[in-house]
Amino acid sequence: MRKFEEKTIRSETIFEGKIIDVFHEDVELPNGKTSKREIVKHPGAVAVIPITKENKIVMVEQYRKPLERSLVEIPAGKLEKGEEPEKSAIRELEEETGYRTPQLTHVTSFYTSPGFSDELIHIYVAKELEKVENPASPDEDEFVELMECTLEEANKLVKEQRIYDAKTAYAMTYLTAQGME
Amino acid sequence: MRKFEEKTIRSETIFEGKIIDVFHEDVELPNGKTSKREIVKHPGAVAVIPITKENKIVMVEQYRKPLERSLVEIPAGKLEKGEEPEKSAIRELEEETGYRTPQLTHVTSFYTSPGFSDELIHIYVAKELEKVENPASPDEDEFVELMECTLEEANKLVKEQRIYDAKTAYAMTYLTAQGME
Repeated sequence: MRKFEEKTIRSETIFEGKIIDVFHEDVELPNGKTSKREIVKHPGAVAVIPITKENKIVMVEQYRKPLERSLVEIPAGKLEKGEEPEKSAIRELEEETGYRTPQLTHVTSFYTSPGFSDELIHIYVAKELEKVENPASPDEDEFVELMECTLEEANKLVKEQRIYDAKTAYAMTYLTAQGME
Repeated sequence: MRKFEEKTIRSETIFEGKIIDVFHEDVELPNGKTSKREIVKHPGAVAVIPITKENKIVMVEQYRKPLERSLVEIPAGKLEKGEEPEKSAIRELEEETGYRTPQLTHVTSFYTSPGFSDELIHIYVAKELEKVENPASPDEDEFVELMECTLEEANKLVKEQRIYDAKTAYAMTYLTAQGME
């Protein structure tokens, strides 16, 4: 038995969406009691930390409906069905920034919120960026504004809470730990 | 108008749970077209990076039903209604680890997954930990196992994917950037 395993007694499908599915489950706890779990299934995502030849980070500003405001983030997107994370990262980078990279390196992967969701995000760093002449377009319901900034400028955006999400906060701290200036 | 604002045309309540509420919304995009948004509302959370006097990080291992496996994480929990994040951090630290701290410092806050959720997590570092004689108990459906490890040991757990979530990945990178050994 897996440590502290919670056995599913009953699983009710609440919602099947384009991005998330929602389940309400009855579980049996290690002590034999029962409890309820609220679970959001997500296909997973990729994010890219794009560094230009001028040592700037490419970011995108976009509206986030759950927050009713826009955020400045590193480029990211959800995995298409059956798509390899690395291919997805290359695709999202080109669609959202118009850049291509010959040097994509996996940095880490993590679950964004394991208490209620199975969303796993894979984070890459992309260097030696090259402008694509006719880049693939983003999804038709995506409106993004590009910006390129130094790590110092990005850290200012963190203080101003314009950068305010897990993957981008991670990216800034990662670049600092790597000694980027 | 806020940048790239998406106006709500219709909002359908899909689910009202103990932890999350789920909504399905029709929105009007900046170009006048419409689209759908799937939104998970969450009360927010706190997490604590607890550092002992021996310079070890206190972690908890617990089962995460959405992943059907256990993870090693820094102590965390959701905000109770109306609770100040700092009070919540002190409470969760004591409940999950049996430690109290005279030195709690806010590190950062971020949205865990702004594409579909409004969950905001506040991260603190707690130093000069002291054992509580009769600590408050954790929630009755929480089973956690404590461990104390060096940053090097924690980074090994990251490689083994036993540490595998956003807040703890952030914490490890933060401590590295801070020069912890």
